[in-house]
Amino acid sequence: MEERTEIENLGEFGLIEYLTRNIELHNAGTILGVGDDAAVIDHFGKQTVISTDMLVEGIHFDLMYTPLKHLGYKSVVVNLSDIYAMNAVPTHITMSLAFSNRFSLEALNEFYEGVYAACERYKVDLIGGDTSSSKKGFVISVTAIGEVAPDQYVKRSTAQKGDLLCVSGDLGAAYLGLTLLEREKQIFLENPKVQPDLENQTYIIGRQLKPEARQDIIEFLAEKEIRPTSMMDVSDGLSSEILHICKQSNVGCVLYEEKLPIHDQSRSMAMQFGLDPTACALSGGEDYELLFTMKQEDYDKITLNEEIAVIGYITEADQGSHIITRSGNKHQITAQGWNAFK
Amino acid sequence: MEERTEIENLGEFGLIEYLTRNIELHNAGTILGVGDDAAVIDHFGKQTVISTDMLVEGIHFDLMYTPLKHLGYKSVVVNLSDIYAMNAVPTHITMSLAFSNRFSLEALNEFYEGVYAACERYKVDLIGGDTSSSKKGFVISVTAIGEVAPDQYVKRSTAQKGDLLCVSGDLGAAYLGLTLLEREKQIFLENPKVQPDLENQTYIIGRQLKPEARQDIIEFLAEKEIRPTSMMDVSDGLSSEILHICKQSNVGCVLYEEKLPIHDQSRSMAMQFGLDPTACALSGGEDYELLFTMKQEDYDKITLNEEIAVIGYITEADQGSHIITRSGNKHQITAQGWNAFK
Repeated sequence: MEERTEIENLGEFGLIEYLTRNIELHNAGTILGVGDDAAVIDHFGKQTVISTDMLVEGIHFDLMYTPLKHLGYKSVVVNLSDIYAMNAVPTHITMSLAFSNRFSLEALNEFYEGVYAACERYKVDLIGGDTSSSKKGFVISVTAIGEVAPDQYVKRSTAQKGDLLCVSGDLGAAYLGLTLLEREKQIFLENPKVQPDLENQTYIIGRQLKPEARQDIIEFLAEKEIRPTSMMDVSDGLSSEILHICKQSNVGCVLYEEKLPIHDQSRSMAMQFGLDPTACALSGGEDYELLFTMKQEDYDKITLNEEIAVIGYITEADQGSHIITRSGNKHQITAQGWNAFK
Repeated sequence: MEERTEIENLGEFGLIEYLTRNIELHNAGTILGVGDDAAVIDHFGKQTVISTDMLVEGIHFDLMYTPLKHLGYKSVVVNLSDIYAMNAVPTHITMSLAFSNRFSLEALNEFYEGVYAACERYKVDLIGGDTSSSKKGFVISVTAIGEVAPDQYVKRSTAQKGDLLCVSGDLGAAYLGLTLLEREKQIFLENPKVQPDLENQTYIIGRQLKPEARQDIIEFLAEKEIRPTSMMDVSDGLSSEILHICKQSNVGCVLYEEKLPIHDQSRSMAMQFGLDPTACALSGGEDYELLFTMKQEDYDKITLNEEIAVIGYITEADQGSHIITRSGNKHQITAQGWNAFK
């Protein structure tokens, strides 16, 4: 009988590692391949940065509460976020779509309005794509292309002991926005006469439906001549991303619960749902903030920027990766948040 | 009531034209955007060529008769074909997949074996991608990146009156291979005990399941210092592609039925199916041959290359686009083949 291994046993990252274990590179210009936010290609001096993401209906988005225009915007932004996370500037995107005949031209048009709004906001050009039918559901695949000055790209694997661990913006809001939308959807499905009351929750819903990529942080770092020692964007959740940096850089870290930037609206919504705000910040995902490490001597340059929080520091690998809670307890960081999350 | 326009009323090309009608470009480096086989970006001297394609289960392939390894190979090749069609050399690809839990790790592995075989054969590097779940079905999105010397890329829109119309290889075989596989599938579904007899049909089945991109033609043209005046690859069918070149170049053409390159196996299989071999060559699609125009003075340089057929010539736009049949009749070329096809 043929062997059958379930993919869920490996997880996405295990799967990627497995499938790419035998990759052979043929082109001298391939500077960085699979395994970071984006790949880097040398083009006679200037370097090209490339990243790709796929969004699948029913897995990544629910059209019941996702306006198509927001979806178009978000599908561009999440890809640009990967380019910024390389310390690069996005310049172009391609976009391929598959959709069933339940989508009208007006619906597609609305989606593209969001795409073009994101292109305008971030000054990137849509240069190609493919449109195709699907039997069922909507699939969006975007490839983003950017550029970076020679060897100025920042990888995940170069954090060093003593570096400060920093994150932009705030965390957990997108997850709480999603939780709220899912709850309102259930209420609506049970009783279509009840109108959702989302008025006081515009921040967390906006973070879920219309995230932005942190172009401003990359510009700020360049202006202050701070080159992060490692960087990635927060798409799967802070603790998962921290563990990527630690594993790929072969370092450990200490993280302080009290330093985690959490918006007031996130905190109160978490309480309403009976969730721990810290757990939401650690494991929520879809924040599209930048997580980076930098040399301690650069600390003075960032103190006035309220959009950057120092949340911990890098240690040697054998120290492991830990979070110190407000009460002073020490927990190991796991990809699902720290253990207390369970 | 909201307006609702069915997308099928526009067709794929009408749809792309409609959705991209208001594109604004922000980057001076964007040399060529939507509307050709690939886009072109300037990167300080060298030019980068980018193309993307999406393959959807049930629309573009049927896993009942498509081995996963072949599918992996083909999904790379069809993208490389677009890069060659720009007179460029592919160097890198990214690949995003969405698949349901009916796919095991072994199945994905087989798919990637095909991907890597194509990367090896064409010396391109897989540098990134995304793997994701789907509720149902398998979706593959590939972006191919290539390079071309400054301004040596070849567009669809630059054919001129008097140019020769040429095509590589032979036409119609992939369509006949598909027709045969579909027939055998029906026979199998009706009576699973009947084993398909495909032994004498390896050529047409190979053309459907494992096409190749015409790297050799691009190399030959470079070696002979022939720069095509326009070029594209034959993915939708010869007549559809010819009409693209004529429309975008604002020219007409004359095509000779007797000059169309058709493989003996295609011809005999067409007869068996009661199909006109010429109609298959004109409308079949998925040949991944190169259709190009060139100056008459280059004719002597190609006469010894049996892989290139001169099939007609370019006229002024007001002459229209016609095919001269073996019997000397003149028919207008339509996107579904010439009228006699119906």
